[in-house]
Amino acid sequence: MAATRFILPETDIPTHWYNVVADLPSAPAPVLGPDGQPIGPDALSAIFTDAIIEQEISSERWIAIPEPVRELYQLWRPTPLVRARRLEAALGTPARIYYKYEGSSPAGSHKLNSAIAQAYYNRQAGIRRMTTETGAGQWGSSLAFAGQAFGIDVRVFMVKVSYQQKPFRRSMMQTWGAEVLASPSLHTAAGRAALEADADNPGSLGLAIAEAVEEAASRKDTTYGLGSVLNHVLLHQTVIGLEAIKQFALAEDYPDMVFAPCGGGSNFGGVAFPFLADKACGKPVRLVAVEPSSCPTLTRGHYAYDFGDTAGLTPLMKQYTLGHDFMPPSIHAGGLRYHGASSLVSQLYHEGLIEARAVPQLATFEAGVTFARAEGIIPAPESCHAIRAALDEALACKESGESKALFFNLSGHGHFDMASYDKYFAGALEDYDYPEDAIRAALARLPCVGA
Amino acid sequence: MAATRFILPETDIPTHWYNVVADLPSAPAPVLGPDGQPIGPDALSAIFTDAIIEQEISSERWIAIPEPVRELYQLWRPTPLVRARRLEAALGTPARIYYKYEGSSPAGSHKLNSAIAQAYYNRQAGIRRMTTETGAGQWGSSLAFAGQAFGIDVRVFMVKVSYQQKPFRRSMMQTWGAEVLASPSLHTAAGRAALEADADNPGSLGLAIAEAVEEAASRKDTTYGLGSVLNHVLLHQTVIGLEAIKQFALAEDYPDMVFAPCGGGSNFGGVAFPFLADKACGKPVRLVAVEPSSCPTLTRGHYAYDFGDTAGLTPLMKQYTLGHDFMPPSIHAGGLRYHGASSLVSQLYHEGLIEARAVPQLATFEAGVTFARAEGIIPAPESCHAIRAALDEALACKESGESKALFFNLSGHGHFDMASYDKYFAGALEDYDYPEDAIRAALARLPCVGA
Repeated sequence: MAATRFILPETDIPTHWYNVVADLPSAPAPVLGPDGQPIGPDALSAIFTDAIIEQEISSERWIAIPEPVRELYQLWRPTPLVRARRLEAALGTPARIYYKYEGSSPAGSHKLNSAIAQAYYNRQAGIRRMTTETGAGQWGSSLAFAGQAFGIDVRVFMVKVSYQQKPFRRSMMQTWGAEVLASPSLHTAAGRAALEADADNPGSLGLAIAEAVEEAASRKDTTYGLGSVLNHVLLHQTVIGLEAIKQFALAEDYPDMVFAPCGGGSNFGGVAFPFLADKACGKPVRLVAVEPSSCPTLTRGHYAYDFGDTAGLTPLMKQYTLGHDFMPPSIHAGGLRYHGASSLVSQLYHEGLIEARAVPQLATFEAGVTFARAEGIIPAPESCHAIRAALDEALACKESGESKALFFNLSGHGHFDMASYDKYFAGALEDYDYPEDAIRAALARLPCVGA
Repeated sequence: MAATRFILPETDIPTHWYNVVADLPSAPAPVLGPDGQPIGPDALSAIFTDAIIEQEISSERWIAIPEPVRELYQLWRPTPLVRARRLEAALGTPARIYYKYEGSSPAGSHKLNSAIAQAYYNRQAGIRRMTTETGAGQWGSSLAFAGQAFGIDVRVFMVKVSYQQKPFRRSMMQTWGAEVLASPSLHTAAGRAALEADADNPGSLGLAIAEAVEEAASRKDTTYGLGSVLNHVLLHQTVIGLEAIKQFALAEDYPDMVFAPCGGGSNFGGVAFPFLADKACGKPVRLVAVEPSSCPTLTRGHYAYDFGDTAGLTPLMKQYTLGHDFMPPSIHAGGLRYHGASSLVSQLYHEGLIEARAVPQLATFEAGVTFARAEGIIPAPESCHAIRAALDEALACKESGESKALFFNLSGHGHFDMASYDKYFAGALEDYDYPEDAIRAALARLPCVGA
């Protein structure tokens, strides 16, 4: 019986997170205030605790993972690295395909890696209440469980249209004890203003962020937790890549290419950054961020200063962006509908150290179904993006006869996304090819700072 | 860091299933035809292949697991044995609580263990088409994926009310390529008769079985797969208990009590039978089948010959039963709403080798939420029954100061059962205390054979 799953003992849960900032070829671009001047860490203290801010600005290569966080990780980590032998056979490819399954976390995705860390540091700082937002529901679920684990009350502002369409993600958060509100809500000025303008406002991630941040900033007892984009979030996710490197040693193999979905960037950064360190040591691994062609931030956006939210309330960060008011179509990979990208991922892409590909929606579901029928697990729509790119490469190997080792992060299961699969099978999903002028128009509205 | 998950290497996937028939104190009671006379294996050949029938009547202690089945098992087996340290702490109990997580299978429950085996043997016999029924959806999902894995077309008759209420279980089966029909359907005489009598017939498991069996019996190219009750199904599930015994050795511990939900019996048999063999060797382990108090087959039924289906079409098997036309209330643990129990489980209970407990519905959900908040995983309503019984024992340990080792089978996750959790939180679930005369009336209708 040839080995299929490469599993590490619990003692191999990483003891440190890897901070890619230490190995960047050039210093990260500073974060700017609305006046275009660099801002200091103090600007973040209204919504984040000191330990989080420290990690956000740290340039230490290795940051110790607190023991209580590692103990929580034990509930599902190390996650398996799987050789997708049945998928290889189904494709008839000479490629060696591997995936790491982060959907085995209780919350069903990699997001829990950072949620646990964030809840821990907040509880250490005496915080007993946090707010956050959620779109597809993966991040909200993760912080709900993490809050429960550390005795923190969590209030989740869930984009109203998701709140209505994904009632079971909401039930999941409630089972873990979180309070879930449809956003826009009457609890914040931002929500009230939105509802005043349009009582039927379906909500958006940008608006839900505004509500969660407003509440955290206005209450001394409450902080805010973000599920992607920021440096500390990507840092926490590096457990994925660090484990994978050890697991490839077990498999006596090494990836030629690594694929991960890229929305805000924590999924991609989590799996790719540790390989980047390897790459710096001379291993010729190619790291590919895969984004939806309907929200082609890296492949068609600009590298410029922009806001993190649609309302323009956050500090300005240098990033690949489609313009903060770019409104991607409502594709089913809700977690990848973000106008920008993590500054770290953006900088690495700008410096040519990583690659990016955009894939259309229908092809991602096709890849997801092919994967599910071969390997069993039904992937989240976000994860289907990485699968699509890996499959394309595997099929190219079939043409060329090459046997590359292809590795992707299977970031989550699709158990709460079956309505999207239904639509795919019913032929009710579409591809969106964004016209160049729509993108140019959104980019023309970029703030004129730090250019 | 104290160990939490005890994980075996793939080479420790069992090479043989354990057949408890070899170790029964007395021979199993024969299966009877409608005339009350014992029937031979031929009577099963209209719907089952020879290899399955051979296993159904075998008394060999160990039956080799074919290599292709073990290879499929590698997709998720060995499943983890987990020490529920956070649950212990939450309860403040000196008990050591362990669970085995079968929900990590692609289909989300232990059912896949038998589905893979059944699909394999059918494909070996040249079968390319199978029918089955599903209520809650766990078995149908499992056979859907197993059929896909071995190139067998699967048609699932899904109880109409589930078909409508659990659309995502249906989507899951379709993603794996199965055809799913609402039962009653127009495809069978049984379905047509039911619809003629009542066009709005919501369906029942008994009726769906009748449809699936009718179609398999009437088509030469089609066989039938059953997800519980029969000897060969329980046999396939013994991988659970066999792995668990090895894992307890890793944990340097051994259970004082083993708990599993009991509907048809494959879940309980799968985890308990291997421990029964240990018990025969002098280990004082107590094996507890946990059933819903609304369908108290073992705790309040009779040990008698009865049909397996509500219509009285199957052969007669000696079993604990509430009467084949007993209609349990529509509790949310759909997998436990069965009037009878596996003959093997029934015989062992009758001979005093195992125990049984009935638990009310609300208390099972309360236990499920307690478990989810401590350990992360949200359990299926069926699994919540075993959790409830284990929690009761852990709380008794807290009173007495004893430190028992309690082990339960976490047979599946609840990702497709969140509507039930919603109802629980909304206070919309009820307990059912079955009046003694209703049970007596159903038992009075037992067939008068082999008594």
